[in-house]
Amino acid sequence: MAEFRRDPITGRWVIVAAERAHRPRQLGTANDSSSPEPCPFCAGNEALTPPEVWARRAEGQANRPGWRVRVVPNKYPALESGAPWQGTYDAFYQSQPGLGVHEVIVECPDHLIYMAELADGQFTDILRAYSERLVALSRDPRWRYLLIYKNQGDRAGATFEHLHSQLVALPWIPREALDEIAGAEAHFASSRRCIYCDMVERELADGARVIFAHDQFIALCPFAPRFAYETWILPRAHAAVFAACSEQELKACARALRETIRRLNRALDNPPFNYFIHSLPTHTGASASYHWHLEILPQLYRAAGFELGSGSNINGVAPEMGAKLLREVLL
Amino acid sequence: MAEFRRDPITGRWVIVAAERAHRPRQLGTANDSSSPEPCPFCAGNEALTPPEVWARRAEGQANRPGWRVRVVPNKYPALESGAPWQGTYDAFYQSQPGLGVHEVIVECPDHLIYMAELADGQFTDILRAYSERLVALSRDPRWRYLLIYKNQGDRAGATFEHLHSQLVALPWIPREALDEIAGAEAHFASSRRCIYCDMVERELADGARVIFAHDQFIALCPFAPRFAYETWILPRAHAAVFAACSEQELKACARALRETIRRLNRALDNPPFNYFIHSLPTHTGASASYHWHLEILPQLYRAAGFELGSGSNINGVAPEMGAKLLREVLL
Repeated sequence: MAEFRRDPITGRWVIVAAERAHRPRQLGTANDSSSPEPCPFCAGNEALTPPEVWARRAEGQANRPGWRVRVVPNKYPALESGAPWQGTYDAFYQSQPGLGVHEVIVECPDHLIYMAELADGQFTDILRAYSERLVALSRDPRWRYLLIYKNQGDRAGATFEHLHSQLVALPWIPREALDEIAGAEAHFASSRRCIYCDMVERELADGARVIFAHDQFIALCPFAPRFAYETWILPRAHAAVFAACSEQELKACARALRETIRRLNRALDNPPFNYFIHSLPTHTGASASYHWHLEILPQLYRAAGFELGSGSNINGVAPEMGAKLLREVLL
Repeated sequence: MAEFRRDPITGRWVIVAAERAHRPRQLGTANDSSSPEPCPFCAGNEALTPPEVWARRAEGQANRPGWRVRVVPNKYPALESGAPWQGTYDAFYQSQPGLGVHEVIVECPDHLIYMAELADGQFTDILRAYSERLVALSRDPRWRYLLIYKNQGDRAGATFEHLHSQLVALPWIPREALDEIAGAEAHFASSRRCIYCDMVERELADGARVIFAHDQFIALCPFAPRFAYETWILPRAHAAVFAACSEQELKACARALRETIRRLNRALDNPPFNYFIHSLPTHTGASASYHWHLEILPQLYRAAGFELGSGSNINGVAPEMGAKLLREVLL
C-alpha cells in the first residue's frame, strides 16, 4: 500500500509507493527499443491492461480493438482509491494511506512514439479523454486536485514508449498548484484582474516571447522559465477550468498543442518532454483570479545538485531566444 | 550576462544564463567516453581552467601540478561577482543581473570518475576545500547563501566525468534553505529544541532508517525521502554551520561520507547521484534551531511530469527498505 509521508522539517509531502519499483520498463534500460515484451498499449493487447474506464471508439466493444483513445487504471498505481483516509497519530512523523486514482490515457492504437505524428483530430480525442475523465472524477468529493501529465521519452521519465499520458487524483492540492492559486489571488486582491490575462496582454503587446497566437489560444515562452524552451499554452479569453472547455474550444486547443509540439520537434529534433495541465480545483472559489494552462517542459538538460539543493533552476536558454527559434522554425 | 528573473505568478526566481548553453560537454552526448578533448581537470592541464583560487598541494607552485584538491572559477559561470546589484523597474516582470560566484572544486589530480575510489584523506582534503572557500566567501557581505553541490554521472547532470563539485554564492537565500530554516524555527519556537537533533534521537531509538552511526556522524534514510535511497549525513551533536567544523570533525565527516558513498556504490552499482550541503547562512540568527547536514540523492528514476506539475515526488523505495539494503551491504 502506498503512503503519503510528511517531512517534519519542511512540511513537504511525498508519495512512497514501494510496489512501483518493481514495475516493468520498456525504456531506461540497456536495450531500450528491442524489448521482447508485447506493448500493453497497442490495439489487440487490451487484455494486458486492467479493463478500460473510458474509450473513444469508432467500432467494437469495450476492451477490444476499434478504439482511438483508451483510458485504463494504471497497473502499477502510485495511489489507490480503495485506501482509507486516516492518518497516523505520531505528531512528529505524519503519514496517510495513499488514497487516490492513477489512470493511463493511451493516446493512439498504433505503436507511435512521437506525439507530432498524430493528426489534429487525434489530439482532440485525447483532450476530450482528459476532459471527460476530469469531469467524472470531480464528482467524487474525496479528490481535491486532478493532475493530467505526460512523459515523452526516456530522459523525461517515460517507462513505456507507446504514446500515453496519465491522470492522478489527489486528496490534497499540491504545492505547485497552491503557489499559482495564491499568487493569482494576491494579484487579483490588489488589481481585480487575472494575472494570466494581464500576462497574455503584455506578451501580445511585446511579442518577443510569443511563439504563435491563434484566435483562441496563445503559445509563449514565459518570462522566468525553469527549463530551456519551456512553453505555456493558454486560452486567450479568461477561463479557470480546463474541463469546462466546449467541443469547439477542445478543437482549438488541440490545434495549438499539436502546432507547439511539431515546432519543438522540428526545432530540437524530437526532444524528450513533460507536459501537464494546471486547472482550478473544484471548491476553491478562485475562478475570477485563476486561469488554466498547459505547460510543456522539454528535458534537454538535467536538473542537478544546484536545482535540488536550492529549489531554483539555472536555465541556459533565454526565453526570448527560445521563442524566436520556435516561432521561426519551418513546419 | 546572466540574470535572475522572477515568475510574476508564483514569485519563483530562476537564473537565466544563456552563455551556459554553449559550454562544452564530455557527458550526455552520443559518444560519452571517447571525447577527444583533453580533460581540463587533470593534473598537467591547469592552463585549461581559469587560475586557481585555492589549492591543497604537496608540492609545486600555483597552477602547476602537485596539488591534491584544486578550486577554480567556473569557466562558464551561471553567475558573476562583477555584476551590479540593481533590478529593473517593471513591477510585473522583475529581474536582476546575475550577481554571484560559481567555482569548481576539482577533487583529485588523476582522472577518476567514482568518488568511492578516493581514500579517507582525500575526502578530508575535499571537505577542507569546501570549508575554507565557504569561510573566505562568507566575508563578502553580498553573499546571503553559499551552496556546495555535486553532480556525479550523466544522469545526475554532470557535464564532466573527472570528479568535481561546485560552489555557488547567491545574493539571496534559496527556497529550499528558507523552507528548512522556517520549519526548524517553528519547531524551536514551540519546543525550544532543534528538530534535527530530535530527529536523530528518534532515528537512533528506532533504528529502521539508520544506515550507520559513528561517534560523531550518523547516516540515515529520512522518513519522507523524495528519491529512492536518499541519504542524509548529520553531525550527532548540534551544529548549525558546516564551515565551523574543526579539523577533527572534518576527518570524521570525511569518513562518514566515504562510507556512505561506498555503500551506495556497492548496493546500487555506482549510481549517478547528487549531493549538497545545507548549512546555516550567516546573519540569520537561527543557530540554536538549525542543524547543518549533507543530503545525497541517487538518481535512479527520473522526476517527471507528476513531480514537475505537483511539486511532490513519487518514491518507489521505502526508506526502511533502502536503509536496510545500505546497512547490510558488504563493503
